[in-house]
Amino acid sequence: MSTLSIRDIAKMAGVSVTTVSRVLNNYPDVSEGTKRRVQRVIAECDYQPNNAARNLKRTHSNAVGLLMEGSATPFITDLSDIIEAEINAHGYTLVPHRVTNGVSGVDTAVQLVMEKRLKGLIICGGYFIHSLEQLKRLPVPAVFCTTTLSGIDHSTYSSVHVDDRQAAMEAVNYLVSIGHRDIAILGGIENDSGGVSGQRLSGYYDALKQHHIPLDPTLVRYGGLFTMQRGYDATCELLSGSRQPSAVFCVADSLAVGACKAIFNAGLRVPQDISVMGFDGTDMARFYEPSICTVRQPKESIAKKTVEVLISLMEKKGPNRHIIFPTEIVTGGSCASPGNSVKSHQ
Amino acid sequence: MSTLSIRDIAKMAGVSVTTVSRVLNNYPDVSEGTKRRVQRVIAECDYQPNNAARNLKRTHSNAVGLLMEGSATPFITDLSDIIEAEINAHGYTLVPHRVTNGVSGVDTAVQLVMEKRLKGLIICGGYFIHSLEQLKRLPVPAVFCTTTLSGIDHSTYSSVHVDDRQAAMEAVNYLVSIGHRDIAILGGIENDSGGVSGQRLSGYYDALKQHHIPLDPTLVRYGGLFTMQRGYDATCELLSGSRQPSAVFCVADSLAVGACKAIFNAGLRVPQDISVMGFDGTDMARFYEPSICTVRQPKESIAKKTVEVLISLMEKKGPNRHIIFPTEIVTGGSCASPGNSVKSHQ
Repeated sequence: MSTLSIRDIAKMAGVSVTTVSRVLNNYPDVSEGTKRRVQRVIAECDYQPNNAARNLKRTHSNAVGLLMEGSATPFITDLSDIIEAEINAHGYTLVPHRVTNGVSGVDTAVQLVMEKRLKGLIICGGYFIHSLEQLKRLPVPAVFCTTTLSGIDHSTYSSVHVDDRQAAMEAVNYLVSIGHRDIAILGGIENDSGGVSGQRLSGYYDALKQHHIPLDPTLVRYGGLFTMQRGYDATCELLSGSRQPSAVFCVADSLAVGACKAIFNAGLRVPQDISVMGFDGTDMARFYEPSICTVRQPKESIAKKTVEVLISLMEKKGPNRHIIFPTEIVTGGSCASPGNSVKSHQ
Repeated sequence: MSTLSIRDIAKMAGVSVTTVSRVLNNYPDVSEGTKRRVQRVIAECDYQPNNAARNLKRTHSNAVGLLMEGSATPFITDLSDIIEAEINAHGYTLVPHRVTNGVSGVDTAVQLVMEKRLKGLIICGGYFIHSLEQLKRLPVPAVFCTTTLSGIDHSTYSSVHVDDRQAAMEAVNYLVSIGHRDIAILGGIENDSGGVSGQRLSGYYDALKQHHIPLDPTLVRYGGLFTMQRGYDATCELLSGSRQPSAVFCVADSLAVGACKAIFNAGLRVPQDISVMGFDGTDMARFYEPSICTVRQPKESIAKKTVEVLISLMEKKGPNRHIIFPTEIVTGGSCASPGNSVKSHQ
């Protein structure tokens, strides 16, 4: 481990400590010759500048925080990979940070921003509890990605997301259009009215209402977490209930994979006995057998626009913005008309 | 954003700046009464200590780095979740960091350790290029997790992993035991002799040799990355080759999912026409239809032992250790004897 100090480097390069510091921090007012001399000494000595000291001198680092809720789902993992690549391409670095379920995201955000001297923040995922008062404590621009806030002054933050309620309504409309009326839903978190899970549940209610299908509470189940196991467990409960649905709309592809497996293990078929629909548009849905019909969120566009909006805010080039991307239904072998049901295998 | 300084806190609590600093850094020589008074003022004022300044004062932070290669596979994502929980349970924080394919992991590690003032390092995944010289530059203890180094003095680092070569050999032995001799392999990276991918390929060669099955190079394919899409593409190539295998051993579950889908899309069946075997033991393999037969790595044990070894090293309670966990073949519907092949559906 190099034990050279900035003073040693200054001495060897024949310049002042301030000049070395200016080169390290990429200030413009150092002549090219001096800059090259200092950089050569730094390279030759394998000198590692003390980052903590550097951060003290800078008002801001070039770091952007990425706050994600709970365990990573494949969709959020993919999204954060694209966000990281975009952030790096713009000359910033990404500091990812997971938030435990139930912890206030904004409190964590404020702490993270101050501790890591972040220049901006991306908040990703569905269950953050927010209020205008909390939001105002954020000392840097924040972009909510794949989610937004309800009842909060829109000029205080930015967001890039899909219309989860509308997208879920379209998913259920699709199931109705191919003949289903006994449609169950696998939700995420119960009582999550503001989050994506609650929004998708509302879309399900809207669609049923629109088609005059009475709501049957026994067909509404919750996974709790967006995992395959939770989708499996909730579907087993559903199948042992008093009324068997002809289709299950799952608010995440991971839940849908678990739902399919539970249906198979019960000796039933997908889609002939029960159709399954997912949400997100992940590889997992595409490569499942049968391919799972899903609602595709345009993750590349969402990730790139999130970074674009954040950078424009950090560089003070624009006001807060709210961008909503359209979703798309990707048909797949997991959905068919209930008339196709042939129970000959039983 | 709070603009209070440590001086303001000291004034309000009626103590010196040094005392506030001692409370913040949890030094033992502050009376309980004074400590409580300072903590109350800090809490009431919502004071955020300047972490950069605090790091300058400390020799080490309580942070442990987690270096991961490339894009996260579901196995590595799961593993890092468990590692994070374990690290937190021991009072440390985890700083995750992705390394791009082809970049020297140890170079990045040295930089990360010095910039973030890490106390220890966990290096996870398969493609790091290491040498003893590089390794000696690491100023803190390092534990290699799910991988190890070949040809390097074992006393200079620790590792917790499975025997990838042996495990792959057992997987192929299993396929041979149920009657297969035309066994293809989907590898990861080509020419990765030291990494997990190369080790698993060696195990495949060992098993063929043991059973006097001649090696057919047309049955050896590479995904390049451990993704479903790469597994799909490589299997499509394999199926259009001169010789169709009766079984495909994939060195990762994600590759195996893609392989199954390619087989289905070619109008063939799994396992009746081609058996598919994976590696890792992920949820994805378990919830696929049919369930994918795989080699289970005990991820909970690997993650917990990794943290245990690292903490023992950081707290200078033990020497470097190398721990190898056994793997287990999890049978699944994706493998059957080739005699079961019935091509009536074509």
